[in-house]
Amino acid sequence: MTSLERFSVNQMTVKQLTLPELADACLELGVPGVGLWREPVQAYGVEATAKLVREAGLTVTTLCRGGFFTAIDPDERAAALADNRRAVEEAATLGTDTLVLVSGGLPVGSRDLHGARERIADALAELGPYAERHGVRLAIEPLHPMFASDRCVVSTLTQALDLAERFPAHQVGVTVDTYHIWWDDRAPEQIARAGAGGRIHTFQLADWTTPLPEGVLNGRGQLGDGAIDMREWKGYVEAAGYTGPIEVELFNDGLWARDGREVLAETASRFLAHTAD
Amino acid sequence: MTSLERFSVNQMTVKQLTLPELADACLELGVPGVGLWREPVQAYGVEATAKLVREAGLTVTTLCRGGFFTAIDPDERAAALADNRRAVEEAATLGTDTLVLVSGGLPVGSRDLHGARERIADALAELGPYAERHGVRLAIEPLHPMFASDRCVVSTLTQALDLAERFPAHQVGVTVDTYHIWWDDRAPEQIARAGAGGRIHTFQLADWTTPLPEGVLNGRGQLGDGAIDMREWKGYVEAAGYTGPIEVELFNDGLWARDGREVLAETASRFLAHTAD
Repeated sequence: MTSLERFSVNQMTVKQLTLPELADACLELGVPGVGLWREPVQAYGVEATAKLVREAGLTVTTLCRGGFFTAIDPDERAAALADNRRAVEEAATLGTDTLVLVSGGLPVGSRDLHGARERIADALAELGPYAERHGVRLAIEPLHPMFASDRCVVSTLTQALDLAERFPAHQVGVTVDTYHIWWDDRAPEQIARAGAGGRIHTFQLADWTTPLPEGVLNGRGQLGDGAIDMREWKGYVEAAGYTGPIEVELFNDGLWARDGREVLAETASRFLAHTAD
Repeated sequence: MTSLERFSVNQMTVKQLTLPELADACLELGVPGVGLWREPVQAYGVEATAKLVREAGLTVTTLCRGGFFTAIDPDERAAALADNRRAVEEAATLGTDTLVLVSGGLPVGSRDLHGARERIADALAELGPYAERHGVRLAIEPLHPMFASDRCVVSTLTQALDLAERFPAHQVGVTVDTYHIWWDDRAPEQIARAGAGGRIHTFQLADWTTPLPEGVLNGRGQLGDGAIDMREWKGYVEAAGYTGPIEVELFNDGLWARDGREVLAETASRFLAHTAD
């Protein structure tokens, strides 16, 4: 067992690599887990990806992402639910038990955060039992409040748990991602709440760096480059009983412009430097 | 009494106007209040500004801004406190009872949010009595969590009140600014808490629009252009007993590129459209 045993690289961190290149690089560097994204997996083929990662001996720690549940229009809502059922099926085919959910922002012209959050609950009520039948757990990801209008009206771990706890833990839990919650002094107690309920379905790392880029999406920092104490947050999830994989998910134009294998090696090295006991 | 009677324009909204131009435009448009900023006031002269606004019959609703209390270095801390005492004196000279505080981000290399917040409390303990002697109240402004590392480690109204309540309300209260707290489902109950304690020292409006610009500072939207229901938030502060001025504070490159008088007229018009009962 290496000290990378809990490390998983989210595919977006090195999106410049093809899936075979990613599998090769993981084998070479001793990276045991990957978090996958639906779009590149669909492009390569879901079955083909499942075969590739199985033969490489990789664990698929999560599939990203389902969600976008906040539409008001009935046809849009039906389409979103159908797409989420496909995401559940893909997760099952890939052999992961966790589908990460980015819940969706405000519909155009709407200013009703509360209503949008309730529509998420409605969608979870339909999707949860379907996921359970496929052996897949849904992991609501609170996104940083700067994404509240356009990506995800679930902005805190508290809000995510308030939603998740309406359903059984083996259907719905949460994603704990340092990037989104590091500023929140209530987050540590909410991690304890999530752990006590068996609802920490995945734990992800990224660092907070400034200045944020235009659109703020692709400014997630390499571990150690920013304001977040990774050991502190790893300590919180471990104290809450979480012993699973730790995924590093970086959206960063600077990292994407570099050689993907080199970025993966650097990320593994930073993971060790900033999380090892 | 006009229906603009509670409207105040923060100077930054129309920073392209000189102070005399701003006073003229306010008189012409029937704008009764202004929120001022230290730098342009110092450039024009504090006494001269006080005379200008007094003769124009304008109420100075706030002075922006004190704060930046999070340094660790003793000399830096002493310099920050001295500068804040000057800000208090300037507020008194200008005839406003409210100094808005942007509390400061993490010192370079630090990852200790809790420690930074405690240093703010230490500074308030020194500054509060000084402000009281000058008839000035300090108004801690929680800034949106996207500013937590580089501008203000106080990210929620809850955190701001946890700090403010260590001191008498006539020394330390909070700034309620829709832009920073609109995403927070706990904010309405915290507004009630602030109102019950007599700690809503100013109420500011700006709308939330996306995509955010690089650096995210100058993306505050004109009222009505974004995701925030202004009437809803005005209702929360009024239910909490707040009957004071309502300041519109926009940092927006697009507005700054236009004719300042035209922007002020538009802002007054939007204020009426989005806050009138």
